[in-house]
Amino acid sequence: MAKKLPRNTVARLSQYRRLLEKYIFMDEPFIFSHDLARMLGLKPVNVRHDLMLLGISGDRRKGYSVNALLEAIGDAMDMENRGVVLVGMGRLGMSLVSYLRESGARIQVDAAFDVDPMKVNNMCEGIPCYSIGELGDFARKNQTRTAILAVPAEDVNDVVPILLRAGINGILNYTSGHLNVPEGIIVRNIDMVSYLEEIIYFNE
Amino acid sequence: MAKKLPRNTVARLSQYRRLLEKYIFMDEPFIFSHDLARMLGLKPVNVRHDLMLLGISGDRRKGYSVNALLEAIGDAMDMENRGVVLVGMGRLGMSLVSYLRESGARIQVDAAFDVDPMKVNNMCEGIPCYSIGELGDFARKNQTRTAILAVPAEDVNDVVPILLRAGINGILNYTSGHLNVPEGIIVRNIDMVSYLEEIIYFNE
Repeated sequence: MAKKLPRNTVARLSQYRRLLEKYIFMDEPFIFSHDLARMLGLKPVNVRHDLMLLGISGDRRKGYSVNALLEAIGDAMDMENRGVVLVGMGRLGMSLVSYLRESGARIQVDAAFDVDPMKVNNMCEGIPCYSIGELGDFARKNQTRTAILAVPAEDVNDVVPILLRAGINGILNYTSGHLNVPEGIIVRNIDMVSYLEEIIYFNE
Repeated sequence: MAKKLPRNTVARLSQYRRLLEKYIFMDEPFIFSHDLARMLGLKPVNVRHDLMLLGISGDRRKGYSVNALLEAIGDAMDMENRGVVLVGMGRLGMSLVSYLRESGARIQVDAAFDVDPMKVNNMCEGIPCYSIGELGDFARKNQTRTAILAVPAEDVNDVVPILLRAGINGILNYTSGHLNVPEGIIVRNIDMVSYLEEIIYFNE
């Protein structure tokens, strides 16, 4: 599939879907783009633009068909290969696995990787946990390209090369460390400290 | 203090500081803005603009003084009231408290709030944990305005009004729920599912 949607649109489509899925128990639900925007705290102009990119149009009086929206979002976003691994199965890692499962998202973590002998080769949070040395074999066999990184910050420089050698090219970084990766590798940083400093700055 | 820095600048200043603090063991360290940009994966033009907003200028040959940068960032960002509470001391909440402590950030969580009788009125992860019903008194006494929200998604609608009544006006939302808050309340959402869907979309 051609990757033609802008990055911000993709992130918003994911939010739309989770909200819209709450409507599907209704009989033929419809929604206006400005209501979608309001409920998610987004700008109406962005929402309208995203829906235009999906190629669907709404009814002037009723708004958009929720079922048509969900179908279009699924067509646009659902890649064949959605396998994710988690690296660093400490308390943060375990809480992320269970959070993701409880969120009802379509994404599931296939396996975890750690160095703790108590965890390696055992089930952990309902998923298998392997030694970090096995990541390469696992990723090749399962064509895994996405990893959630939750190791201690001081281990980041040792672990990132292992991810890259394993063919991982998308990383959701929960560590406070900055990842040095070559161009073409997608990194999203969950930087708790920056977010908090920003909130504190503006709510004084 | 006048709040005049743009939101993206504030988030980046927080990142600069954590990187620059690694340099202070050196004797009179200097850094070029393009090196700062490269190390953090940012655009050089944004970094230059941020430093300009701080009102400091670099030396053409040596770059910026790291000590002067750190002082300017501290002057610009460090608010008097940096107290933060965490609401929802489950596994995710506990891992966030310990993550923040280990990150060496200037922000610390003063107290946690939960409903679990095993946790309430005990120390948890090194901080006191109180009943959620005590949040209002605590926040007023300590002038707390910022909360990290890590309750189960189904409790969000019950908990947010308690935060607002307690005078919290900045929320870092780790739940998958959307927060309905009045204008003027700052919410930053850590939406793991959107981030992952975005990564998967672009790294297929």
